[in-house]
Amino acid sequence: MRYFEDLAVGEVDALGPHTFTETEIVAFATRYDPQPFHVDSVAARSTIFGGLIASGWHTCAVMMRLSVEAAGRAGAAITGSPGIDSCRWLKPVRPGDTLSGRSEVLETWPSRSRPFGFVRRRVEMRNQRDELVLSVVGVTMYRLREEAAG
Amino acid sequence: MRYFEDLAVGEVDALGPHTFTETEIVAFATRYDPQPFHVDSVAARSTIFGGLIASGWHTCAVMMRLSVEAAGRAGAAITGSPGIDSCRWLKPVRPGDTLSGRSEVLETWPSRSRPFGFVRRRVEMRNQRDELVLSVVGVTMYRLREEAAG
Repeated sequence: MRYFEDLAVGEVDALGPHTFTETEIVAFATRYDPQPFHVDSVAARSTIFGGLIASGWHTCAVMMRLSVEAAGRAGAAITGSPGIDSCRWLKPVRPGDTLSGRSEVLETWPSRSRPFGFVRRRVEMRNQRDELVLSVVGVTMYRLREEAAG
Repeated sequence: MRYFEDLAVGEVDALGPHTFTETEIVAFATRYDPQPFHVDSVAARSTIFGGLIASGWHTCAVMMRLSVEAAGRAGAAITGSPGIDSCRWLKPVRPGDTLSGRSEVLETWPSRSRPFGFVRRRVEMRNQRDELVLSVVGVTMYRLREEAAG
């Protein structure tokens, strides 16, 4: 396992790839973000996006899935998250787009009162044209090696 | 329709309620956030949460769904979002929890180059014990009344 003490500022992980299908985009948005440009490919043509695009929350959810997969490969002792510092949806994600990402550790600090540490990361997702489509800065909690040993 | 020009700082909308089921929590997390405390009610007991909790992204997705419903009731001319300024998952959301929310307009400003305006809101979701579980500050784009008038 990789514990809080094992993480270093500047450490980079690769995420993905993941290809978005129209079926998946519409299924997510029908349930969680039923706006015309996310659920109706015909109505979407007359919006500012000119066609169907994924919900930004869907893009984030896929980023999370890819992050959990990367954490699993690394044996990361993740134990939750207090939240997100910022999230920018920079370009639309359309059916057929393939996103890959990288996450970088920006900062680490121990909790003052509880047996874990915090890790702040920037995660960037790019499409198949290498355009930045999503930039997120978020915080994750990691268990302590000393705690696991103790 | 309510356009950018119709929005005022301090304006409040009510969101929800929505009750989270274990089935829904596990279904979302299995697809997008498959960590033990989100997908396995037995394994979740030995985590810091002491039981199954919803993915924070799931809580956000439900908040989005409730926001789209509120926007629909208000006839809001929403046309996308550039992103989220901050998001804090303050308390776990567990199976059976019922969340309700309020959103408040913090700031509005027109785009300098494109035919829409930006609206910054704080959205807060509380559970059935009136505990604050989610606080999000995000930005939405609204179409302009003058543009719609042609």
